[in-house]
Order: sequence, then structure tokens, then C-alpha cells
Amino acid sequence: MRITDPVRRLVAYTPGEQPRSKRVVKLNTNENPYPPSPRCAEVLAGFDPDRLRRYPDPEFAALRAAIAKANGTEPDRVFVGNGSDEILSLAARAFVENDEKIGSLDPSYSLYKTLAAIRDVPWTPEADDPKVSLFLLTNPNAPTGVMKPVSEVAACARRFRRGVLLVDEAYADFASGNCMKLATAPGNRNVIVMRTFSKSYSLAGMRVGYCIGPKDLIGALYKVKDSYNVDAVAQAVALAAFKDRAYHRRTVAMVVKTRGRFAKELGRRGWDVLPSETHVVFAKPPAPAKAADVFEYLKSRDIYVRYVPGPLTGDRIRITIGTDGQMKTLLDALDDRFSGGSGGRAAFGARRKS
Amino acid sequence: MRITDPVRRLVAYTPGEQPRSKRVVKLNTNENPYPPSPRCAEVLAGFDPDRLRRYPDPEFAALRAAIAKANGTEPDRVFVGNGSDEILSLAARAFVENDEKIGSLDPSYSLYKTLAAIRDVPWTPEADDPKVSLFLLTNPNAPTGVMKPVSEVAACARRFRRGVLLVDEAYADFASGNCMKLATAPGNRNVIVMRTFSKSYSLAGMRVGYCIGPKDLIGALYKVKDSYNVDAVAQAVALAAFKDRAYHRRTVAMVVKTRGRFAKELGRRGWDVLPSETHVVFAKPPAPAKAADVFEYLKSRDIYVRYVPGPLTGDRIRITIGTDGQMKTLLDALDDRFSGGSGGRAAFGARRKS
Repeated sequence: MRITDPVRRLVAYTPGEQPRSKRVVKLNTNENPYPPSPRCAEVLAGFDPDRLRRYPDPEFAALRAAIAKANGTEPDRVFVGNGSDEILSLAARAFVENDEKIGSLDPSYSLYKTLAAIRDVPWTPEADDPKVSLFLLTNPNAPTGVMKPVSEVAACARRFRRGVLLVDEAYADFASGNCMKLATAPGNRNVIVMRTFSKSYSLAGMRVGYCIGPKDLIGALYKVKDSYNVDAVAQAVALAAFKDRAYHRRTVAMVVKTRGRFAKELGRRGWDVLPSETHVVFAKPPAPAKAADVFEYLKSRDIYVRYVPGPLTGDRIRITIGTDGQMKTLLDALDDRFSGGSGGRAAFGARRKS
Repeated sequence: MRITDPVRRLVAYTPGEQPRSKRVVKLNTNENPYPPSPRCAEVLAGFDPDRLRRYPDPEFAALRAAIAKANGTEPDRVFVGNGSDEILSLAARAFVENDEKIGSLDPSYSLYKTLAAIRDVPWTPEADDPKVSLFLLTNPNAPTGVMKPVSEVAACARRFRRGVLLVDEAYADFASGNCMKLATAPGNRNVIVMRTFSKSYSLAGMRVGYCIGPKDLIGALYKVKDSYNVDAVAQAVALAAFKDRAYHRRTVAMVVKTRGRFAKELGRRGWDVLPSETHVVFAKPPAPAKAADVFEYLKSRDIYVRYVPGPLTGDRIRITIGTDGQMKTLLDALDDRFSGGSGGRAAFGARRKS
């Protein structure tokens, strides 16, 4: 048997479309509309070629120390991955036996099901299933944008004491709260909280994610990772972005502000908008418009949003928050077709482009 | 069970020491002594921040096309990984069932055994074991530096038709031949040939490896990889290095020339040097000197080489080829202790430093 049975059966995860044209308004893959901190470009421009020639620090000591310090914890409770995706894949290897299961909310990040398929174990949305040894809880959740309060996540961790609760906080920097204290608490035995540089730090192209948790669980991730899983440039660029707290705060605040105004505008047009604590809104168009049709119409106008068919997600579209100008372009396009009025112009001013 | 049994049992792979001091002559981790192509620094300096903000091309189209073209094959027969290590790890997932085995030469790259342990399957040096579904054949081999002729590898592929033969050609650019034709041959069903940018392209810090093989096997690797496994910067830097053929040829030729002179010098001092087709030499000191003692002595002189105890490797040290100046420093240090004469000075001239 050359290719294993589970891999033969596997349907690969489909990332959102990546149109190349600069004309496209791209609100489909949760990318930050603002560039990363200017410190990142400085790091690239001044990068010592000798550090390219040598293997990177296999334990990313500088980045780990900075993350630990900012979160009031110890470096040996911090792990860094080649994007959060790698951390998820390593967790599936470190915390799931061949006869166990992986759980997650439903709907949630659709990669989780693919991950279970690659690991060749069942996926289930039932946290109470006694076979679940790793539960992936995205909070705030995707694609809904909705956040569970910390108390609820803490209760879930207590109930799920036999396994590892991995709280995927990819969007937490855009939220009004987060669960990091559950991960850093001295008594914590089974909670890992994961963050990414892809979204709030505008470094999706750089592939850096991290997580914090109990020392033994973090140690298990170190054991199963590739020796040099995060390259030298990524370590340095992520560290530069992480240290530029003022820039991070400022750009996050801009996204949050635009989100509020945009959600309100959609509401005025009769859309049902879930309360978002992320940089996306998950919204249902007013009847008789169908989400799938709106998605296709917007695409015909070079505006890309995300639509996932199916009973749980098929009546809504997920729109990543862009610049004010991009959101206005989208609202204008909606108004051209669905006759919603001039609210977009009122809210976002006369600018046509970001 | 929070951490799986196989991971609990796991002893992590130990990479070579990475001393921080610039004074150290570092010949222990197979790093190229020359910096990468100057084109790489140019790519970093001119990198568009907008490409950091966006997700990278999940299928690394530009890099893949360049690699395919240079090897006279199609892009869908090329896969790129976050270092060759990631490709090995993905191959262990894609080509090995839970009740199968991973094979490799012995001695060879010691990561292979760790990889089998992470995958929770037995490792064996017996290619004829009917349970082996993935055989990792490093050619030229590590740590020996010795190369099998293509005809022998081809015969091995025919014998091993039931499984995947992954030929790890990490060192092939320093060799007098390679097996790439086995991977690109139209009738090839089970041979994958893997290369890395870490060694001959001086990009160990950047983490890029690639492999070429039959379309279905390469497709299986795409299925099990993380969506965005190679970051945007790594894709661009590797492509720049790959395209600078003249620089690559020149620096490889310098390493090969130094290797020849250094091996000869060791031979003059009574060392037994295996014929190397890599950028390392694996050599046994003349009695009564013991490899372990030479290793420790050199370390005391701030010269790091690699020593792996054990019946197969314990009587030799592995020395990565550095600059002429570095090799002279090493020979001088040997002569100080082991009274070998002034051959080092004669061969490498009066320079003290690279």
C-alpha cells in the first residue's frame, strides 16, 4: 500500500480563494487590511545573511521569552509554531491516541475536521463523548464571530478534565476579553490557549502562531515538532511585530471601529448580523436575497467574501473587515443591487478606495 | 490520557549544538561556510509588506515551476516543505499505515528513528522487511558522506516496489552524481527524490526543502500538509537563490575543492577518511587517539565538530567542510596536540581566518 487509506479517503481543506488582481476587494480570508508594523520591514532589510546560512534557534528563545513575559508566565510554558495550523497538527499527534477522537464546535474552523481525517480519528461536536481527548474551542468562534465568556470556557475545561482543551484565540485581539488566564493559571492542567500573528499582527504571510499551557503539554509539543519548525526570519519578524505594542493597539482599534460601523450599516439594510468580537462579520441578507446569490453577485463586482454552503452556514456570508473604503465599496455594491439607500455613503464618507 | 503513550516514551531528536559565540569555528551542523546568494538579501530588503499581510501562495507556484523546469519535469510532480524535515514527517503520515514500518540505512540521519517513534511505528534497517512501506535512503549518506551509484539505488527501487523509496539527496549538490532521473522518469511509480536549500544554497535558517516524484505520491503530500506550510518570504528567498545558478555553482565548487584538500591533509596525518561526496568528512583518528577525545579536545579549542557515540559511529568524528581558513585552524589545533607536522600550513597557506 503506497498511500495510506486515510489519506486516500481525504478531501483536502480548501483555503479561501486568493485572486491575484490588485483590483479585487479581498474580504474572504481574514487578512488584516493594514500592513504589519514598519519594524517588520526594517528587520527584513537589515537581516544578517549569516543568519540565513545557519540553522535557526530550534527553541525560538527570544520570541518565546517576549511572549512569556507579556503574558506573565514562564518561557517553558510557551510554544511557537509554523502558523497556528502547525500547532493544531502537532496537538493532534501529541494528545490523541489512535482510538480516540478530536472534538470541536460546529460550525467552526473547517480545518479541524480535515485535521481529524489526516490523524485518522473521528471528529465529533460532542465534548461529552468520552473518546474525545482533544477539544478545539475557537473563541471567539469562526465563522460566527461570537465569543463565549471566560466563565463558560472555564466550566468547559473543568468538565473536560480528562483531555486537552485547546482554546483557539486566533481572533481574541479584536475581542473585549480572552481566556489567557486559564492557560497561565498555576493550577491549570489541561487548557492550552493559542494565538496567531496572522490576523491582528498582519503577518499571515509569515506563518507564526503560538500557544501557552501547562509545562508537560507544551513539552509534548516540543517533542513532536520538526527540529527547526520556525525559520530565522519568521522568528525575528514576529518578535519585531510583537514588541511594537503601540502599532498593534492602533491598527486593532481601527479594525474594531470599522467593524462596529459596518455591522450597523448592514443592520440598517435589514441584514441579521451576529455580534462579532472578531475581525469578521457573519451576516444573513434580508429575504428574498439568498446568501449564495449575494456571494456570487459580490464576486462579479470583484468583491470577495466567504460563503460556505450547508445547513449551519449556508444562509450567511462571512465578511472580513477591511478598510473603511473597502467596506464602503461593498455597501455601495449591495445598494446598487438590493436598493438599500445611501447609508454607506453617510457612514463611511465620500472616499471610494482605501 | 492527556499525552499519548508514544509521545511520552519519545526521546526528542537532539540537533547539533548551536554555540552563540562568533569566535567558535562551527563545523558541527552541516552549515555552508559561505553566505547565500546576494539576491536573497535583495529579496528581503525589497519585500512588499502587503505580502506579509496576506496568506502566502499555498501551492508555491513560482518556486515549484522553477524547480520543475530545472529538473525537466512538471510542477505537479514537485512538492515544497518547511525544510526537508517537514517533507519527511508528511511522508510518514501519507505512506505509512499504523501497522507498517519505516526503514532507513544504519547509520544514517538520526532523525529517521525519531520520526518513526513520533509516527508510533517501528523503525528497521531491513529494506526487505515486508512491513516496511517507506524507506528513507540518504544518498550520499550521512554521516559517512559515501554515495551509492544510481544503478544500485535503481535496483533498490525495483526490489522495494511495494512501498515508497524516498531518496534524501540533501548533499547531492556536492556529489559527482545524483538520482533525480529516477524520480522524473515517466515509468517511476515509487521513487521520491528530496533536496534541500539548507546546505548547498546556504539557507538553513530559511527552512525550505523540496521533493520530486510520481504525481499520486506528491498529491498525497499536498493532502496532508498544513494549508500554508511555506511562508511567503521563504518562497521568495528560495526562488532567488535557486535562480542564481552561477553563484550556486561557484560556492559549491569552493566547498568541494576545500573538501579534497582537507581530506588529503587528514590522510597525511594517518586519519582514515571515508570518500566523501558531501560537504562533510567522516574520519577516524589514528590510534591511540579516540574520536571522543578528539571531539572534546577540539571543543576546548572552540572548534565544534559532531560526535555520535555508539558501535556504528563512535570511532569517527563528522566534520562539516568550512572555509579554507577554518579547516586550517582545525588542522593546526590537531597538530598542536597530536604532533602531525606542518601539512596544514602547506596546503591552506598562511591565512588564519576565513
